[in-house]
Amino acid sequence: MADIAVTLADKRGTLPADDKLGFGKIFTDHMFVMDYETGKGWFDARIVPYGDFDISPAAMVLHYGQAIFEGMKAFRTEDNRIVVYRPVDHLKRFNNSADILSIPQMDVDLLHAGLNKLIEIDKDWVPQSLGTSLYIRPFVISVDPFVGVKVADEYKLLIILSPVGAYYASGFKPVKIKVEEHFVRAVKGGLGEAKTPANYAASLKASEEAQKEGYTQVLWLDALEQKYIEEVGTMNIFFKIDDEIITPELNGSILNGITRRSVIQVAQDWGLKVTERRISIDEVYAVHAEGRLQEVFGSGTAAVISPVGELSWKGKNIVINNNQTGATSQKLFDYITSIQQGRVADKFGWIGEVTKI
Amino acid sequence: MADIAVTLADKRGTLPADDKLGFGKIFTDHMFVMDYETGKGWFDARIVPYGDFDISPAAMVLHYGQAIFEGMKAFRTEDNRIVVYRPVDHLKRFNNSADILSIPQMDVDLLHAGLNKLIEIDKDWVPQSLGTSLYIRPFVISVDPFVGVKVADEYKLLIILSPVGAYYASGFKPVKIKVEEHFVRAVKGGLGEAKTPANYAASLKASEEAQKEGYTQVLWLDALEQKYIEEVGTMNIFFKIDDEIITPELNGSILNGITRRSVIQVAQDWGLKVTERRISIDEVYAVHAEGRLQEVFGSGTAAVISPVGELSWKGKNIVINNNQTGATSQKLFDYITSIQQGRVADKFGWIGEVTKI
Repeated sequence: MADIAVTLADKRGTLPADDKLGFGKIFTDHMFVMDYETGKGWFDARIVPYGDFDISPAAMVLHYGQAIFEGMKAFRTEDNRIVVYRPVDHLKRFNNSADILSIPQMDVDLLHAGLNKLIEIDKDWVPQSLGTSLYIRPFVISVDPFVGVKVADEYKLLIILSPVGAYYASGFKPVKIKVEEHFVRAVKGGLGEAKTPANYAASLKASEEAQKEGYTQVLWLDALEQKYIEEVGTMNIFFKIDDEIITPELNGSILNGITRRSVIQVAQDWGLKVTERRISIDEVYAVHAEGRLQEVFGSGTAAVISPVGELSWKGKNIVINNNQTGATSQKLFDYITSIQQGRVADKFGWIGEVTKI
Repeated sequence: MADIAVTLADKRGTLPADDKLGFGKIFTDHMFVMDYETGKGWFDARIVPYGDFDISPAAMVLHYGQAIFEGMKAFRTEDNRIVVYRPVDHLKRFNNSADILSIPQMDVDLLHAGLNKLIEIDKDWVPQSLGTSLYIRPFVISVDPFVGVKVADEYKLLIILSPVGAYYASGFKPVKIKVEEHFVRAVKGGLGEAKTPANYAASLKASEEAQKEGYTQVLWLDALEQKYIEEVGTMNIFFKIDDEIITPELNGSILNGITRRSVIQVAQDWGLKVTERRISIDEVYAVHAEGRLQEVFGSGTAAVISPVGELSWKGKNIVINNNQTGATSQKLFDYITSIQQGRVADKFGWIGEVTKI
């Protein structure tokens, strides 16, 4: 494996108090960087002080969006170990996104080693109190200074770290979600399965409108018929109907969420019936009318589990479980966060220890 | 109107020989820059030496793709004037793309003045020989250092200039186009009408595969039925059938091309029947079989007109007009390029003179 050169920052910053962390605004002292050139492959893996870098105004990513990213988290356990949640699964998905965007494959072992080394160096930035974590953002951008549409020949990979506060600082609060009728996020044959800037750019207008109307996020329907449920803005979605857990099947336009996988595996381990299938918004409204819709919740890296208390579709609102967090949502949240924070045994092998250097 | 501060470069570069220009690789000595912050609006319009700039690794554009661009051209006329082709139409479309991406509106007059001033300063970079031009790339990127999906609060606008060689250095050559069956570029309710990186990121995989198979570009079908013709990779498309010019109607997922508009206006001015309507790939193949498909050509800023000599769809190839440039394609190319280069009167009011400073 390639060596990872380390250049330490002259000055170290300080982790703010847990209630000052917020999300995505504070960054640690160092970052991991690696470059790629056609014919040379990925090279010069290194850890350097966190900071701005030079970019050409003609850099391809700024014009044609060839880029990918990942999002995962590290936690400080009660016994003061630092662990990463499903790092290899995230890095494998990073390579899957790379394939969809015609970006060269990366060495997962090298990235994993680089990530662990980076976290070890910035370990004082990992907060400890319940719900806090160190958010990890690996990303690749195309940087050739060339104004023309093509697959790039030069890329830059970075991993940056951001300590984040508790998502539910004042306890679980079920969210209001707007079922989007006009805009679409992704379509079969498009980029929906990739974690790539394009999918998020496509969501901005709808999210902005939904937020103005008082909703937290939008629930996307399929692009073809505007009928089948796909995913929420930054989460996959689950429905509990007649004690069965149902989630939209992976179809090429839905993100293959890592927390989605965790929810499915845990629920099955608990003996619950879990089904991945097409589910229409009509069906959700119909089973709600019949009193059979027990819970709705989202799954994602940021929130882990996010109970949905209200859905709005074509001006018709339905309230789920009296706008209270359901038992299964709560139990999944408690269990998965307990694994992440090392409070229960890691029976699924999801936890990556940050190796000491 | 805001002042535009100018900082001149210490050293000037030299315009390469026309046959060394290529496309999108060479940039002039200066660029136009302007910043935006919520609450402050657009500010600090300035012309500075062309060069790399600092960007935060957390800059939103690198993660969530909130960005737009334009592409237009300046020409040096035979009598040594420098003119820009439809600058105000391009800048208005820039604002339309901004709206779709939730980016704040820009002052078209200010941008136009800034563009003219920039070109005047770098006027020695405008090549003169037939087919050459100065390609103009205005773009806006979101630059807040924030890792979370939202509409940004900070933007940077740049205009960069690139002298480009003749698109058809060795004369018109009809291209081979692959009709895409698997991938889709955009869908109604998506970003297809905007000039935004996301649409081009979505095209990379299909274009790469088509090029490996020997095709120049792909022709996109609609995302819903994979039946109706949308546009080619970087061009709109026209069909001449029974002496009628037919092009797909604007439907929200097709780019509202400026050259497309010029073609429609010129053809109508010539008394040709021009129809904007849905047209299916089946219809194109059917009229070809009946000997009624006279010409196929693309329209775009880079090529102006690009005759299509061959289409391939589901393994069935059709050759159009014996793989020769059709009379209408040739006449449109000659006429529009003559207007651009000041060789015929600008009867449509498309030409913007670069004002002397």
